[in-house]
Amino acid sequence: MRLKKGNKKMDIIAIGRACIDLNAVEYNRPMEETMTFQKYVGGSPANIAIGTSNLGLNVGFIGKVSDDQHGRFIATYMAGKGVDTSKMVADQEGRKSGLAFTEIKSPSECSILMYRDNVADLYLTPQEVDEKYIREAEVLLVSGTALAQSPSREAVLTAVAYAKANDVKVIFEIDYRPYTWKSEEEVSTYYTLVAQKADIVIGTRDEFDMLEGKEGGDNQDTVKELFKYEPEIIVIKHGVEGSFAYSKEGKEYKANAYKTEVLKTFGAGDAYASAFLYALFNEKDVETALKYASAAAAIVVSKHSSSEAMPTVSEIEELINNQSQ
Amino acid sequence: MRLKKGNKKMDIIAIGRACIDLNAVEYNRPMEETMTFQKYVGGSPANIAIGTSNLGLNVGFIGKVSDDQHGRFIATYMAGKGVDTSKMVADQEGRKSGLAFTEIKSPSECSILMYRDNVADLYLTPQEVDEKYIREAEVLLVSGTALAQSPSREAVLTAVAYAKANDVKVIFEIDYRPYTWKSEEEVSTYYTLVAQKADIVIGTRDEFDMLEGKEGGDNQDTVKELFKYEPEIIVIKHGVEGSFAYSKEGKEYKANAYKTEVLKTFGAGDAYASAFLYALFNEKDVETALKYASAAAAIVVSKHSSSEAMPTVSEIEELINNQSQ
Amino acid sequence: MRLKKGNKKMDIIAIGRACIDLNAVEYNRPMEETMTFQKYVGGSPANIAIGTSNLGLNVGFIGKVSDDQHGRFIATYMAGKGVDTSKMVADQEGRKSGLAFTEIKSPSECSILMYRDNVADLYLTPQEVDEKYIREAEVLLVSGTALAQSPSREAVLTAVAYAKANDVKVIFEIDYRPYTWKSEEEVSTYYTLVAQKADIVIGTRDEFDMLEGKEGGDNQDTVKELFKYEPEIIVIKHGVEGSFAYSKEGKEYKANAYKTEVLKTFGAGDAYASAFLYALFNEKDVETALKYASAAAAIVVSKHSSSEAMPTVSEIEELINNQSQ
Amino acid sequence: MRLKKGNKKMDIIAIGRACIDLNAVEYNRPMEETMTFQKYVGGSPANIAIGTSNLGLNVGFIGKVSDDQHGRFIATYMAGKGVDTSKMVADQEGRKSGLAFTEIKSPSECSILMYRDNVADLYLTPQEVDEKYIREAEVLLVSGTALAQSPSREAVLTAVAYAKANDVKVIFEIDYRPYTWKSEEEVSTYYTLVAQKADIVIGTRDEFDMLEGKEGGDNQDTVKELFKYEPEIIVIKHGVEGSFAYSKEGKEYKANAYKTEVLKTFGAGDAYASAFLYALFNEKDVETALKYASAAAAIVVSKHSSSEAMPTVSEIEELINNQSQ
Repeated sequence: MRLKKGNKKMDIIAIGRACIDLNAVEYNRPMEETMTFQKYVGGSPANIAIGTSNLGLNVGFIGKVSDDQHGRFIATYMAGKGVDTSKMVADQEGRKSGLAFTEIKSPSECSILMYRDNVADLYLTPQEVDEKYIREAEVLLVSGTALAQSPSREAVLTAVAYAKANDVKVIFEIDYRPYTWKSEEEVSTYYTLVAQKADIVIGTRDEFDMLEGKEGGDNQDTVKELFKYEPEIIVIKHGVEGSFAYSKEGKEYKANAYKTEVLKTFGAGDAYASAFLYALFNEKDVETALKYASAAAAIVVSKHSSSEAMPTVSEIEELINNQSQ
Repeated sequence: MRLKKGNKKMDIIAIGRACIDLNAVEYNRPMEETMTFQKYVGGSPANIAIGTSNLGLNVGFIGKVSDDQHGRFIATYMAGKGVDTSKMVADQEGRKSGLAFTEIKSPSECSILMYRDNVADLYLTPQEVDEKYIREAEVLLVSGTALAQSPSREAVLTAVAYAKANDVKVIFEIDYRPYTWKSEEEVSTYYTLVAQKADIVIGTRDEFDMLEGKEGGDNQDTVKELFKYEPEIIVIKHGVEGSFAYSKEGKEYKANAYKTEVLKTFGAGDAYASAFLYALFNEKDVETALKYASAAAAIVVSKHSSSEAMPTVSEIEELINNQSQ
Repeated sequence: MRLKKGNKKMDIIAIGRACIDLNAVEYNRPMEETMTFQKYVGGSPANIAIGTSNLGLNVGFIGKVSDDQHGRFIATYMAGKGVDTSKMVADQEGRKSGLAFTEIKSPSECSILMYRDNVADLYLTPQEVDEKYIREAEVLLVSGTALAQSPSREAVLTAVAYAKANDVKVIFEIDYRPYTWKSEEEVSTYYTLVAQKADIVIGTRDEFDMLEGKEGGDNQDTVKELFKYEPEIIVIKHGVEGSFAYSKEGKEYKANAYKTEVLKTFGAGDAYASAFLYALFNEKDVETALKYASAAAAIVVSKHSSSEAMPTVSEIEELINNQSQ
Repeated sequence: MRLKKGNKKMDIIAIGRACIDLNAVEYNRPMEETMTFQKYVGGSPANIAIGTSNLGLNVGFIGKVSDDQHGRFIATYMAGKGVDTSKMVADQEGRKSGLAFTEIKSPSECSILMYRDNVADLYLTPQEVDEKYIREAEVLLVSGTALAQSPSREAVLTAVAYAKANDVKVIFEIDYRPYTWKSEEEVSTYYTLVAQKADIVIGTRDEFDMLEGKEGGDNQDTVKELFKYEPEIIVIKHGVEGSFAYSKEGKEYKANAYKTEVLKTFGAGDAYASAFLYALFNEKDVETALKYASAAAAIVVSKHSSSEAMPTVSEIEELINNQSQ
């Protein structure tokens, strides 16, 4: 599957959360000892919107933020990065933007302290999703976390229905986060509903296990089941062991992870998805797209932030060339 | 489409609410002046389970009732009517069974005073739905009201997924009730999800309008859209003007309403669905099934209760013969 | 303490719940086998308002009922019994009136199946309590159940503050019901706050134990503690062993229970409080008031309903004369 | 009234919230443009506990914090400041510590962006308040914000009841914050309940207006009403116009505000209360205590943080001497 850049008014519209990351300024220590935090825009679909806009795609964002200083910062920052925020709405009931305090004890021991209770992004309503806006895009990018709770859940299901009715391709980034979900059965129910309607599904092996409601799932079983429905391409990431892409016509590709000096693990998946989409929009084949994705992930994990560190095309291609596999 | 009686261990499994109706003993007056109420089992899928069991089908029921006198009455009554209640669970958190006080001011002015806050039936969980049980049925009958709220919503979506994975036919009785739903967009979102996966969809014209999220919908548009997906038969009821059935291969049938002395309007839809299913299970064609359905509805509206008044085959056939159209 | 009848515009204003009782028509059996229910007004403060109005006192009621057939029945019925309902408000957010289905297995095995989730009476707000109305009463009668949840809790605390600021006597009927309360510590906290401000406190020994947050409490300890604060009279009921009244100046009275043919136990406490208040308003001494109270309780337990069975003065006095102790 | 230092095992136990302040590192600008935040312990009663401990009093704290990095930071920081945290509990249900992002646009334009949804401190329960611990203190300091919501509300009412039953003096710092409270009537109801039982009440004129449920209240009316109950001293702050203290025996004192270079307004009230208590515990008269309080407030508003900036005795006395009024 090739995505056509410039075919529609927008290349990509992302839907879901746009939040605040508060990254430890003093790191390699427990957060109890971190006294200063740096503010960034965060949230998987916001990062992908910024990441793909950075890479030259024409990107819009549908989501709800707080009607306060944090919400205004998010909207201003994203607009500054070239993302169309005309369909980003401000919550009128006093809800706050989500927060993620990041703790970096060591490159392999990273954790996040989340503030996700009653956050604005989960209160996007179906009425706030505009069919005309979605119709003008080549791709609708859906973040799985937006399915965690009503009414955001129904807003996303509505967006997907609009996309399907208007020949807009749906890309499902599973983006599983345990908070907010009420049960694993709910996760599996809604992930399955959306995955079956998506054209491309991207996630880690663990995330596909959540989708299937089981542990220790097998890639071949996963793709066999999902290819009964709409998906054309399925991307399954296995961390340092690399990542795999499967196509409906039966092809299988693998990319190894690039070597890098890891500072933290956050943001890798968002950079990965951004570069993968960039490549498909720029007439690269799936195998090459996997390389772009892996390289972008390697770049982000070596830097302090997620959104602010989204790489450029030349950074990605330089890394690929330097480590030609 | 013919349904095969006796093909599986169960002919029909209904999923959804089983509640208490409290019917006015003194009627043709406002409820303020009714001092005595008669207790019956109620709730659309419970009525259909009882109705089809009455007509000789082998029926089971999946649902949650209160762990109190009302819940025990429901379970005992349904078992007494031949319904398998082995998968009916009792709520362990003190939730109550739903109540419907019926007011009959005149045959054409009937209303219901509902107690639906925090009722047991809406707390059925996906974990309480047994794939093995569903696999043993020819038909899973889904009531739309069970989609109104989590976790019952996810329990039903899970049941539908189990049915689809095991070649069990899904019949969707839209059964729209305004209480409990948070917005019309939610109604449309979930009704559409289930209708697209159902083999037969049954509802009034108004209910199909809710499904489509618009007013004044047209039957031809409705069936054209839904026949893109799984449905094989669509039944749309227009009250006293009669009802229509459409088949995927393009046939269209109509049944007029039978004449009867109307006491109240409750229960008509449940009798209709019960007799329609009975007919399909007994090798009648769709046109005949519509007649059985209309006749059963006419019988119930002339009687005081819903569940207790579900007609027999001979009552239905007698009415059809007496008013051969 | 004597209460002065006619001293103020109103003798008594009761605050709290007014609900629907659905009494088993067929009794001496489990409720599962009861098929017909008789509708009555219920709820302790509503019963006391009706009971004292029946006995000739001038009574008003502050409370919130549903804006439906049940709420209108309650308001009409109470007004018909002479209770001023000008400060009874109808809930504007769709909440229902509470229900109590009564089960009478035998005279000593009675139970109640309550519908109390999200009921209108617990949503009375402080803004809906009128200081001018309370100021015009000799007595404010507070039902402890109205303290179970916000905002009814704050409405009652506000009413008590208005009463204290305007020399209106406060009578606290503990009326403990386990549903709705979140913890026994909450019960004890709010019961103590109100009891310390009340002029008369009435309850069973078990209810005073809830107030004190312990089991097996002793009457002497109870009254010693409460007489440090506002109370002048404390009435503690011990069921069939009779009831005790204590006065701040150190007097102690006892009344035995009257013999009667018990049909059920509901309503006894409300009749007791009504007759006790009647007697104090009619210049009886505390000892005589206890007799009136006990006789009224004996009459109600021999009849089918609570509100409808509240006795007249002559019925009470006849029983006292017939069983002169 | 003199408070006796060392009379009991503890001089002061504070009850209420201990939270996280995130103070703008780059200030004199809108928060949208602040990119870095400094972390401090915050929350009025935590600040007063730290402030009085700094001044040499023996202080304990009762409250609930998150079971995460922020909660552990709070406990460790307060213990490091000499506060006994043996009765500080960690929330076991995943609730977070409250956050306050401070915005300093200019010395007179300060605002706070609060995260208070479902925070741990408001879930302190009555069962987590230990009567033995309170009995060992000379003073229980109550923060009004802890009354905003159940179960913290009942925990505080329980603590006050324990204090009254054990001759522990109650000091009520009104500390009104609009978030969390459901209505102004609720504020007035609970503030009044606690103020009537307190020995000392401290607040701004606006806070006493909230307590009284009206606007533009008058100090003379306020103290006349409250002196009918338990209070011995009432302190009413009028911002830059200075503050007033009233004693039950009819004396009245005033202190002017000290001159200072204001950086921000946060923390002034907590420093004020800390120094006022210090003075009373150190045999100063009320007039002198007011001076200490005003001086401490002047010092804190000239510094960046609240908790970390709580002054020492010598700083306070130096300012008083330099600006001898």
